[in-house]
Amino acid sequence: MQQTILTSFKSYVSQEQLFDTSQPILLAVSGGIDSVVLTHLFSKADFSFAIAHCNFQLRGEESLRDEHFVQQLALRYQVPFYTVRFDTHDYTTAHKVSVQVAARELRYKWLEEIRQQQGYHFIATAHHMQDNVETVLMNFCKGTGIAGMHGILPRQGHIIRPLLFTQKEVLLDYGKAEQLDYVEDSSNTTDKYTRNFFRHQVIPQIQSAFPGAVTNMAGTIHRLKEAEILYQQAVVVHKKRLLVKKDNTWMIPVLKLQKTIPLQTIAYEIFREFSCSPSQTEQVLALLGSESGRFVETATHRIIRNRQWLLITALEEEDAPVVVIEKGQSQVKCKEGQLQLRAVTLPHISASLNIACLDAKQVQYPLILRRWKQGDYFYPLGMIRKKKLSRFFIDQKLSLPQKEKVWVLESGKRIVWVVGMRIDNRFKITDSTKEMLLLEWTALP
Amino acid sequence: MQQTILTSFKSYVSQEQLFDTSQPILLAVSGGIDSVVLTHLFSKADFSFAIAHCNFQLRGEESLRDEHFVQQLALRYQVPFYTVRFDTHDYTTAHKVSVQVAARELRYKWLEEIRQQQGYHFIATAHHMQDNVETVLMNFCKGTGIAGMHGILPRQGHIIRPLLFTQKEVLLDYGKAEQLDYVEDSSNTTDKYTRNFFRHQVIPQIQSAFPGAVTNMAGTIHRLKEAEILYQQAVVVHKKRLLVKKDNTWMIPVLKLQKTIPLQTIAYEIFREFSCSPSQTEQVLALLGSESGRFVETATHRIIRNRQWLLITALEEEDAPVVVIEKGQSQVKCKEGQLQLRAVTLPHISASLNIACLDAKQVQYPLILRRWKQGDYFYPLGMIRKKKLSRFFIDQKLSLPQKEKVWVLESGKRIVWVVGMRIDNRFKITDSTKEMLLLEWTALP
Repeated sequence: MQQTILTSFKSYVSQEQLFDTSQPILLAVSGGIDSVVLTHLFSKADFSFAIAHCNFQLRGEESLRDEHFVQQLALRYQVPFYTVRFDTHDYTTAHKVSVQVAARELRYKWLEEIRQQQGYHFIATAHHMQDNVETVLMNFCKGTGIAGMHGILPRQGHIIRPLLFTQKEVLLDYGKAEQLDYVEDSSNTTDKYTRNFFRHQVIPQIQSAFPGAVTNMAGTIHRLKEAEILYQQAVVVHKKRLLVKKDNTWMIPVLKLQKTIPLQTIAYEIFREFSCSPSQTEQVLALLGSESGRFVETATHRIIRNRQWLLITALEEEDAPVVVIEKGQSQVKCKEGQLQLRAVTLPHISASLNIACLDAKQVQYPLILRRWKQGDYFYPLGMIRKKKLSRFFIDQKLSLPQKEKVWVLESGKRIVWVVGMRIDNRFKITDSTKEMLLLEWTALP
Repeated sequence: MQQTILTSFKSYVSQEQLFDTSQPILLAVSGGIDSVVLTHLFSKADFSFAIAHCNFQLRGEESLRDEHFVQQLALRYQVPFYTVRFDTHDYTTAHKVSVQVAARELRYKWLEEIRQQQGYHFIATAHHMQDNVETVLMNFCKGTGIAGMHGILPRQGHIIRPLLFTQKEVLLDYGKAEQLDYVEDSSNTTDKYTRNFFRHQVIPQIQSAFPGAVTNMAGTIHRLKEAEILYQQAVVVHKKRLLVKKDNTWMIPVLKLQKTIPLQTIAYEIFREFSCSPSQTEQVLALLGSESGRFVETATHRIIRNRQWLLITALEEEDAPVVVIEKGQSQVKCKEGQLQLRAVTLPHISASLNIACLDAKQVQYPLILRRWKQGDYFYPLGMIRKKKLSRFFIDQKLSLPQKEKVWVLESGKRIVWVVGMRIDNRFKITDSTKEMLLLEWTALP
């Protein structure tokens, strides 16, 4: 006797321990057949749920139609409904990502917010077996390691996929049998995206020749997912064997690493934790045959060959980007230079922009020496209107690297001095000034 | 600067340590572009080699044309040439396998014979990157574990694949540039076989959309091959942890197995060594929740739940497949029946094929009772020419299961009796016979 999809659904949920069925779940519903069936199954199984819908505003009227459709669906099931409209195209421009990546990022971020705010235990999506097979085939063709072969996970953080056990066909049949209404996403039926190429061309072609292919591939994926667990277990053993920590330095014995099998993969797994890209990993492996003193520098670490060891040290942290100056301190340092402070009673006249002389009465301690940031403004000496630093830099014709090195001195939230460039008008020496603060900036090479 | 294929070929051979380049290698050459380029590269690199060609006699004149082409090739390179003609269709019938399986089995068996007889260190085949990608994609679609994802190995036993690093395209370009002659296999250009479906349809489709796909897939395969090594390392650790041997019994603690992660894969890896099929492995896992005394029986072992243990014992060995009969023994047994022997002086006439009467003078002891095997022949009673048993069975219209149960009685390397069927002409009673050996076979139910 063939199991009904409802039975299979319930046993998949319990077998994979996806969630405690008394907990309320937030369903991500686009309005397509997959998520409509998911909703129907949650209702039939008497699970507690709410519906969330994202309108990506990519398909004009059609996007609006879908939003209304899902709203009606929530009304019909009498469950809470959450919806949002995204400027997806704006996001793609601002973050320089594809429409698909933008939609995914926006969707998961918003769903997670709703989940936390409203107290749902998990977010459920309607991914099914075909989605999974598409993902893995795509990764396989794009080039991946074993982590790219496990496909879509049934449970990942706060996201669950309770339909992964079943095929699209089955969902369609069920929708028909239960006379479920749903909407069609017109972008699904074009070959606009890589995924759709696999969905509409590659996989149907394979399945026309081998009807069991999707199920078989899903079986392969399941076994590779288990294989990945074993892979990770073995990686842990190798790391323990190879990495020694001494003070702030990780050490790896060269001979031991050289003899490690499989060398490339273990090196990749070890060094990626020190921000090594795959090509940098090859450079690190080249160190095994090089002389002492050679090194590879990643974004965060230096890996240096030292006799029979590779030594891994973190790159120096930048100086604290904020230096606090208490009253009486005569000197402080930061990455780009040092600042000397001196109380004087006679005004100091200098042509050097690295010397500033302020009215000490205006200055509040502690002073703060910090890098400038977007939004900073000040009243440039000689002006009565405030000016944004970004604007001031344009006037000064600063290059990008020059701008990046600018520090400011702050007194009670007011900028006193754009160091080495201009003091603030409010701190200038006036006729009534009695005590002065003399500042001298020395840039480091 | 682009590496030439010859340079890449040589560095691949050394990097993968395929063979010591002073050793002579036997090249499997079909006459197609791949193996023709392989031959040319071996010659250019000044490696020592010979050429072997299999004629599967599947394409009539074309097969003959290829055989002659490769023979000429060997002449041109002035290297030893070995060739063979197979009755591939006969083999498919006799072994109930596909043409592709038949061809593969015949080819590798024969190549290995030549290699051993003639003292070549390795057999080299011309498999390239596309072949590898096809194999893995096919396995992926048919359903496989991690072992099915490593693809064609650069070195496996005595077989090496020195062209795995390169794409078909590159071989074609090289053949063109070097003006190499080669033959086209007409069966390659049809979609007759699964492989050709992937070769001519699936992969070109993917590659038309993603030109880097084949290279990327080859990269994935390489990484999965390394992942498999780690997988195996972790499996070994789990086996050590779980299996205890006591006398002739393997023992596994139930609780420890239950807690193992990933359970299914580890169970599969452990129990397949005791001939468990994947579905039997599931039955074994069910034993973890069953009462004492339940068991699963595989082809070779019984796995029984005994309190907090699984006990694994070998099934009784089959009767020795060879029974030695010394002079004077009156009865012996084997799996399919028992044989009684008696010296008589009067000829025994019987219509039963289970009774045989021989000239005792011709019989040498010890007699051997054993299963028949391929290559056996005898002189059937009444015939002066010898006949292969396989042929004799066809004449007798024996089914495959019937054939499998046939025993023969042997005397000094000569078959005396095909038990229950026909005696050998050389042992028949003649006018000069004085003493006789009466044999009676009783088949067991």
